[in-house]
Amino acid sequence: MTALTAHSLSELDAHWRAANYLAVGQIYLLDNPLLTEPLRPEHIKPRLLGHWGTSPGLNLVHTHLNRVIKERSLEVLCVWGPGHGGPAVLANSWLEGTYSETYPDVPRDADGMARLFRQFSFPGGVPSHVAPQTPGSIHEGGELGYALAHAYGAAFDHPGLLVACVIGDGEAETGPLAASWHANKFLDPVHDGAVLPVLHLNGYKIANPTVLSRIPEAELDALLRGYGHEPLYVSGSDPALVHRSMARAMDQALARVAEIQAEARTAGSGPGREYPRWPMIVLRTPKGWTGPRSVDGDPVEGTWRSHQVPLAAVREDPAHLRQLENWLRSYRPQELFDADGRPVPQVLACVPEGDRRLGAVPYANGGRLLRPLPPTPPEAHAVPVDKPGGTRHEPTRVLGQFLGRIMQDTAACRDFRVVGPDETASNRLDDLYDATGKAWQALTEATDRNLSRDGRVMEILSEHVCQGWLEGYLLTGRHGLFSTYEAFAHIVDSMVGQHIKWLKTSRELSWRAPIASLNYLLTSHVWRQDNNGFSHQDPGFVDHVLNKSPEVVRVYLPPDANTLLAVADHALRSRDRVNVIVAGKQPCFDWLSFEDARAHVERGAGVWEWAGTDDGSRPPDVVLACAGDVPTLEVLAAAALLRQHLPSLAVRVVNVVDIARLMPHEEHPHGMTDAAYDGLLTTDRPVIFAYHGYPWLIHRLAYRRGGHSQLHVRGYKESGTTTTPFDMVVRNDMDRYRLVMDVIDRVPGLADRAGELRRAMADQRARHHDWIRAHGTDLPEVADWSWPA
Amino acid sequence: MTALTAHSLSELDAHWRAANYLAVGQIYLLDNPLLTEPLRPEHIKPRLLGHWGTSPGLNLVHTHLNRVIKERSLEVLCVWGPGHGGPAVLANSWLEGTYSETYPDVPRDADGMARLFRQFSFPGGVPSHVAPQTPGSIHEGGELGYALAHAYGAAFDHPGLLVACVIGDGEAETGPLAASWHANKFLDPVHDGAVLPVLHLNGYKIANPTVLSRIPEAELDALLRGYGHEPLYVSGSDPALVHRSMARAMDQALARVAEIQAEARTAGSGPGREYPRWPMIVLRTPKGWTGPRSVDGDPVEGTWRSHQVPLAAVREDPAHLRQLENWLRSYRPQELFDADGRPVPQVLACVPEGDRRLGAVPYANGGRLLRPLPPTPPEAHAVPVDKPGGTRHEPTRVLGQFLGRIMQDTAACRDFRVVGPDETASNRLDDLYDATGKAWQALTEATDRNLSRDGRVMEILSEHVCQGWLEGYLLTGRHGLFSTYEAFAHIVDSMVGQHIKWLKTSRELSWRAPIASLNYLLTSHVWRQDNNGFSHQDPGFVDHVLNKSPEVVRVYLPPDANTLLAVADHALRSRDRVNVIVAGKQPCFDWLSFEDARAHVERGAGVWEWAGTDDGSRPPDVVLACAGDVPTLEVLAAAALLRQHLPSLAVRVVNVVDIARLMPHEEHPHGMTDAAYDGLLTTDRPVIFAYHGYPWLIHRLAYRRGGHSQLHVRGYKESGTTTTPFDMVVRNDMDRYRLVMDVIDRVPGLADRAGELRRAMADQRARHHDWIRAHGTDLPEVADWSWPA
Repeated sequence: MTALTAHSLSELDAHWRAANYLAVGQIYLLDNPLLTEPLRPEHIKPRLLGHWGTSPGLNLVHTHLNRVIKERSLEVLCVWGPGHGGPAVLANSWLEGTYSETYPDVPRDADGMARLFRQFSFPGGVPSHVAPQTPGSIHEGGELGYALAHAYGAAFDHPGLLVACVIGDGEAETGPLAASWHANKFLDPVHDGAVLPVLHLNGYKIANPTVLSRIPEAELDALLRGYGHEPLYVSGSDPALVHRSMARAMDQALARVAEIQAEARTAGSGPGREYPRWPMIVLRTPKGWTGPRSVDGDPVEGTWRSHQVPLAAVREDPAHLRQLENWLRSYRPQELFDADGRPVPQVLACVPEGDRRLGAVPYANGGRLLRPLPPTPPEAHAVPVDKPGGTRHEPTRVLGQFLGRIMQDTAACRDFRVVGPDETASNRLDDLYDATGKAWQALTEATDRNLSRDGRVMEILSEHVCQGWLEGYLLTGRHGLFSTYEAFAHIVDSMVGQHIKWLKTSRELSWRAPIASLNYLLTSHVWRQDNNGFSHQDPGFVDHVLNKSPEVVRVYLPPDANTLLAVADHALRSRDRVNVIVAGKQPCFDWLSFEDARAHVERGAGVWEWAGTDDGSRPPDVVLACAGDVPTLEVLAAAALLRQHLPSLAVRVVNVVDIARLMPHEEHPHGMTDAAYDGLLTTDRPVIFAYHGYPWLIHRLAYRRGGHSQLHVRGYKESGTTTTPFDMVVRNDMDRYRLVMDVIDRVPGLADRAGELRRAMADQRARHHDWIRAHGTDLPEVADWSWPA
Repeated sequence: MTALTAHSLSELDAHWRAANYLAVGQIYLLDNPLLTEPLRPEHIKPRLLGHWGTSPGLNLVHTHLNRVIKERSLEVLCVWGPGHGGPAVLANSWLEGTYSETYPDVPRDADGMARLFRQFSFPGGVPSHVAPQTPGSIHEGGELGYALAHAYGAAFDHPGLLVACVIGDGEAETGPLAASWHANKFLDPVHDGAVLPVLHLNGYKIANPTVLSRIPEAELDALLRGYGHEPLYVSGSDPALVHRSMARAMDQALARVAEIQAEARTAGSGPGREYPRWPMIVLRTPKGWTGPRSVDGDPVEGTWRSHQVPLAAVREDPAHLRQLENWLRSYRPQELFDADGRPVPQVLACVPEGDRRLGAVPYANGGRLLRPLPPTPPEAHAVPVDKPGGTRHEPTRVLGQFLGRIMQDTAACRDFRVVGPDETASNRLDDLYDATGKAWQALTEATDRNLSRDGRVMEILSEHVCQGWLEGYLLTGRHGLFSTYEAFAHIVDSMVGQHIKWLKTSRELSWRAPIASLNYLLTSHVWRQDNNGFSHQDPGFVDHVLNKSPEVVRVYLPPDANTLLAVADHALRSRDRVNVIVAGKQPCFDWLSFEDARAHVERGAGVWEWAGTDDGSRPPDVVLACAGDVPTLEVLAAAALLRQHLPSLAVRVVNVVDIARLMPHEEHPHGMTDAAYDGLLTTDRPVIFAYHGYPWLIHRLAYRRGGHSQLHVRGYKESGTTTTPFDMVVRNDMDRYRLVMDVIDRVPGLADRAGELRRAMADQRARHHDWIRAHGTDLPEVADWSWPA
């Protein structure tokens, strides 16, 4: 344990005071940053924005991390959970110089300080939260709950890294955070880095006390030990005492981390050891610490009133203005900055050098560390296809073989993981286990299978934690895939929205290197919930992500195993995207050879000539379009019926694998030009479109197209239950018979010629309906149907 | 503590065996329900579906709840977290008779047993999970995580009720469940009922061990005590011992509950007491207990292999068939059911009577208990409006006064609550605190405000818990409202999807009485995130809910305070709906008197004659349509500019408050007929529509309308940051100047006449842009703009 000398205490305090001063300055000051003259109303920003309450606590943590990084030559990344304390993190980045290196127009001098202050939460400036724009950050602090999962994701497979993670006591009430504590049972002390949670109890949220600050200390201690941690406590409001206590706790924590790692790395990854109880710090300091004690007679420091801007009327009320000036001067800025506004050496004494600075750590700009995935060839796992529909495979099982091979090829560099909420095997990706195990540090029993301390398949029954882990992993320069039941992807709607926002903003920052994409495999999808039924039927995640930034979002609906392989290969090698891949796990016809599949994915949408009766010499009579495995099956079955019963009808079959192709070229980089769209789907022929999800999505994508008034979409319309596969498509009017009826109804003049066929189709639907209810199974003619070669 | 006699032990065991037998029967048997002959393949269902693993545990809990309900004459509702164990809950309902009372075609005899078995997870039958169709249920068990929050919601304001809540060890890993443990700090032992969590550790999920079953017992104990509970442990695999231990634990738990309640109810709701540590039960029994020990050489009982259907090849493999028969006969059905298939008296000895039965408890059919809200008149809180746009009010503050009055008017019956994630005051609903406090049982400090043990405003920083509480509260027959930041409503996307599915299904069940609607107030919306910026900007929750069942979903965008009042009054009195109300908290012009507002809400959409220059005698030259407070402001400002600069142009201003009015009448009950739509928005005039959210939503709703090709929508397109209000609308091309330019571009022939005005508008946009970046504020001409009366 390092003793904190009086000398280093005063250095730490100087750094902390400087950071506090800079945080207040960002919230309030438009000018006069060094208080070289008395504050006047015109020095104050016209709109006072930002969050003061958490800032002094974040500044304290940053200051003390600086010390231990420097003393111990550590590599540390910090996840700032209360990232609404943007002023604190920006202040520290400016102090250590990383801000000015990243943004040379904000130098570390009086001019730069003025710009730092002015730009904060100002139009055209920087956001009030920690954000992609903030050097050293991988975590937007606006939506609370994900800090700890991000921290673990960052630590996995970075054995030399310590990830500090400040958790606000507000954030600690959220579900995702509450679940993330157990991530310590998935962290391998041999191959992974360490996570040091710092639970910051400052007592209040926006307007309420926090739960964890208002349970007895013994109960809190039990809770944290129940999570598997050894808590260290730092609490108080006297800065000198808190500095000493914090330094002691940091030293203890880091010594314990080193001990755990040394022990585990000597012992290796074998079974038998009990999992380590990692240290953590509980930091209990007043909200808005060192800010105004009270304002207009109401207590402010130590209460929720310090959450945002403690003095609201500074421009109008001279008393408030004086109070602000006294507050700023209480940090003794003249001792902290020289006449040119540069931090004095005492302030910077604790700051580490170069890439060790928290704002410069390369892990926080993961693209800098990213290596391409090994060139594992997907074609080695392709299924042979001589003719369309001659064989069937489970697409996700085929994908699992490819993923298993990638897992094997990354065994040495350990930069690829697959996450999922207890569904990897259910989703038929279990060939992964030939290459690696499932990460697990908790107790084991003889009946367990495929668990291992160093496994790179991650399974916990929390989509939130899975998503947070993967985000943290990708943001620090690695690759991965999230496999989940389609319906339950909605659980992370809000998280993926934030990640897309992060990527969108990052792409606009030249200093942020591109990172690997976040890849979803949505399977166990809406059409095949034979057992689970209505609660598991929801294809709307695609709708949700398609509302977001088109430069980031891609959605693929591969219709068979080889196309899934081609899509996955493309997605895994892409950068800065969110790729959503929807594919079934049930046996599915193989339509395309791998070569054809790859070309099809390249095009994104195309005519399947072999399936239609359209010879290309003239516009077809009707287009049957499809996207998704089940819609493709029904469209091909309908095409076969039409060929049999109406051989003279020119039917074009179009399959769409990259759904954004339907959007206007101007709105999505993958959108087809109007000419390409019109060439494929015509401007004036009826298009019967069978789509995997909610049918109106297709209209929303294609409403500007010339042929839109001829577009008729079938899809899932919330008519779900526990039933057979064919009953599901009948219930939702997407079955082959219904599609044939749609063609008859929509091709001009056909209704007269084909009335008998239409009646036969309606009879078929009724016959199937009755059979299914009587026998509980589909009729063999659909269950065993195959493409008539 | 009640001693369990040998006699009652054998009765409990008989009941449990009967329930287990019936659970297995549902999964496997198509016929021969009483095993009156040896099992043959044709007695077996063709598709084997359902979840066995959790069922024996649920049966055990049900059996023992029966005992204590009967012995102590309790009112108990049980939330079955592992609701995928549908066979168990259905078995118990059939045994106690509630199933046959609810569904007379499934009588409590051999015929009925055959039907019970056959219908399970069978096309046209019943879902495999606990579902709305299940008597006694308020909780769909498909999507895990919400059981405990539902249980607390059910217990609030039901002082006579005990809510038992079985939590699976898989579910315990989810975020929402992990956060829900702290709900015990919000339960008032005086005015609320009790919640008895039963954490069922059966060791495995679908394919993995569970975290909580694989931490040392002392650590688990610390965790649960850290949550504020006193855990009681029941564990084993010998039924007789487990029965005794479970009975003892139940008795202890209920004695402790009674003690806590008696003590609190004597002491009253005052401050000073420390919150009680409620008992809970940890039940550790093998997964798939009493099922096959092993199958084909692999261990099954006690492992993940028993999760669904332990014997998969029963129809094909005679050995599996024999194993199934032995398994079924191990429960000794001939001792449990008479020759007619009726449960023998010994089996039914523990079952309570009438409405005390778990399947009949009226709380689980909350509509039966629902009283209408008191007739609190909204007009008493309306703001006076002599002329449109003459005054401004904060709409949510006005709503807060109305809600406060309802809170006051329900003080005696206590059947109305408002929930929110620490944002009630931020959302300006703080007038509620004149009528009630914020529920809080944890420690308090002198600086706290508005906390009270018996408060009916519920604030915890977890949208999941807020949503779960409110769902549980509504499902058991009460009223409420959830206020939240618009962007973060996405956090509960998946939960609201499940609630909508629940309501959709419930509406189809005549025995389920309608319940009060789930009302959202989405505020702090996308256009006014001046401080928080991009991470807080997401209007997509509306898109999400509009994908769901139209008979359930309503979306309202009131443009001012009085319209918000009228909408809220309507929503709070509606039944079986999810009402989403999007409204701002910032000062907003008052456009409509309360009478006009009420009429406008009734119509859902209408012409604002006073705002346009359309005299109604002929079709207008252009329609300016709007939905949402900020779009309405910009459209009216654009209308004023057009009136000033192009007075001869016939402009019609249309405001849409009920967004589903745009949908086809056939697709949504609120959808306009084509005639009404065409009359309002024309079929051939340009419609410039300023919409609150993603613009393509309007196209998705209106794509079938005759005038769709003339529809041009402006809205939020993910161009967000920390900036001024007007800069937000400029960035997203929804500002007044842009709208005027749109009119000029789209009205045939106008571009030539109004070229100069168009250039002036473009100049204005540039001028505002520059000013905002220079000064950090909006120009007074937009900040202080008002409608030119």
